[in-house]
Amino acid sequence: MVRRLHHIGVAAEDFEAAVGFYRRMLGQEVVKEAILPEQGLRLAAIPCGPDGVWLEVISPVSPESPLAGFLAKRGEGLHHIALEVDDIERALPYYEAMGCEPLARRPEPGLGGLRTLFFHPRTTRRVLVELVDRVGLA
Amino acid sequence: MVRRLHHIGVAAEDFEAAVGFYRRMLGQEVVKEAILPEQGLRLAAIPCGPDGVWLEVISPVSPESPLAGFLAKRGEGLHHIALEVDDIERALPYYEAMGCEPLARRPEPGLGGLRTLFFHPRTTRRVLVELVDRVGLA
Repeated sequence: MVRRLHHIGVAAEDFEAAVGFYRRMLGQEVVKEAILPEQGLRLAAIPCGPDGVWLEVISPVSPESPLAGFLAKRGEGLHHIALEVDDIERALPYYEAMGCEPLARRPEPGLGGLRTLFFHPRTTRRVLVELVDRVGLA
Repeated sequence: MVRRLHHIGVAAEDFEAAVGFYRRMLGQEVVKEAILPEQGLRLAAIPCGPDGVWLEVISPVSPESPLAGFLAKRGEGLHHIALEVDDIERALPYYEAMGCEPLARRPEPGLGGLRTLFFHPRTTRRVLVELVDRVGLA
């Protein structure tokens, strides 16, 4: 059901410094960049080599963003993983049957026109897992 | 220089339960499993879809393992990312010039005959980054 690992998310206090660091570490340029005001996030995607798995740098754009709370509590570092599925709504009953609890009622808009849905990490062994799909791009 | 994201490492208190959970979440079976006594680790690799990026479940096999300290401090969850390079020793000067400090003097044996080298997360924006290569498999 999972097509591939789509990206890994890294939380950054200093967005520009982190983007510069990971560009250099990966030897790649930013391919997508956005501010998602409704989620209080700023994002930049840098591919890990030519196979397309992104490292996504994320920073809060307001102190009310849940990510600001994460940074205050845990500091910079690995934040989430995103799994690409064909269709989030069709995949959801499978994950709910496993006990994974979605954080929203329906998929939300993400970077590059993708749809996204997160699970509560309490229900996914303390790993914040995001599903993404390309339904909105079809 | 980085070929691809090779795997993501997830620290688990309960190895068997975590392997079962991620097999179900990813819809894939374990492709590599090992105990690395010199590193105090037990590992299992589960592919995230057909493209070969692994999710690696890791648990300590002794209370002296550094991973036991990680779990006591941070609990289960995302632990590290591994980047595949052609040759760790040839890549190392580039990363040292960026300020990344290796945790060992030379590459060590990892899962499936790979060579591995970690950087101190203090020098990699609090993300534990591992380099892997296939030099020992050539």
